[in-house]
Amino acid sequence: MVPLELDEGLPLERIKDFSLEELLGMAIKAEIGSREFYESLAQRVEVPELKRKISWLAGEEKKHEELLRRIYAKMFPGKEVVFPEEHIGPELKPVARELQGVQDVIDLTRWAMKAEEIAAKFYAELENMVEGEDKKRLMRYLSDMEWGHYYNLKAEYELLLDWEMYSQMMHVGP
Amino acid sequence: MVPLELDEGLPLERIKDFSLEELLGMAIKAEIGSREFYESLAQRVEVPELKRKISWLAGEEKKHEELLRRIYAKMFPGKEVVFPEEHIGPELKPVARELQGVQDVIDLTRWAMKAEEIAAKFYAELENMVEGEDKKRLMRYLSDMEWGHYYNLKAEYELLLDWEMYSQMMHVGP
Repeated sequence: MVPLELDEGLPLERIKDFSLEELLGMAIKAEIGSREFYESLAQRVEVPELKRKISWLAGEEKKHEELLRRIYAKMFPGKEVVFPEEHIGPELKPVARELQGVQDVIDLTRWAMKAEEIAAKFYAELENMVEGEDKKRLMRYLSDMEWGHYYNLKAEYELLLDWEMYSQMMHVGP
Repeated sequence: MVPLELDEGLPLERIKDFSLEELLGMAIKAEIGSREFYESLAQRVEVPELKRKISWLAGEEKKHEELLRRIYAKMFPGKEVVFPEEHIGPELKPVARELQGVQDVIDLTRWAMKAEEIAAKFYAELENMVEGEDKKRLMRYLSDMEWGHYYNLKAEYELLLDWEMYSQMMHVGP
């Protein structure tokens, strides 16, 4: 079941229906959405190690937003960022409810993994669309970073599935 | 050219020549080596964003070491950790020299990526060797985390190759 915090969005193939300007706008919007999702999730998660990791992800997305805004400003000098209504791939929204136990955290982590995976593929597609080695490199950077997030979340997800062990191995010091 | 900070080690196929106890000892030693490598590298790198990322990696490896020690203590209660002389895959050692410009940082990043990649595969092999879903899960966790580091380093590596752009995009605020 798709949770409230996720809007599924358009499939990746629809990327070719949009201009580069629109796609960069979507990317900036998605980074803002992800940050707000992680920030609100971090506030609601009580396990210190997981809280710390989710806050770290929020900080990373903030930096990506700033980087994308710089890229946008270089490509479209003096223009306001265009935010299309549509978006490619899942878009995360803030967690505005109390979480009901670990299963909620597991579900949200799985959706966040999905969003990170599509974001990684989205930037890889943008790499093909932008011209110039410098811009391609920046898209590759963003794609690799999102893969990094994906694997980081996947690691936590695996352990969360065995909550008893998670608490035992991650709560307590050596 | 293999730098001073890297000892190439045995190929991954040699994993079957060692006991699980020895392999866990190797893993703990490798995590310590990686941490010392990242800590020493962070001291020598001047770019704030990169320094911060490398310090973050050092902290992650410290946590992996602690987690592995807990796993070891559960599997071999009351036993001192055995550190075999040999090790599988590249082992990182502290950076004890002044770095000569960005090319040195690029080279060391590439070797660190290599070490993270082999570590990820090493833990995936250990997953097949350990018995019980809980231990398999922990090995999967460590493998995914190392893939996370790999992609994080790969992202920085890509940008470092275009130093002018790196400084422009990562140094300066929005």
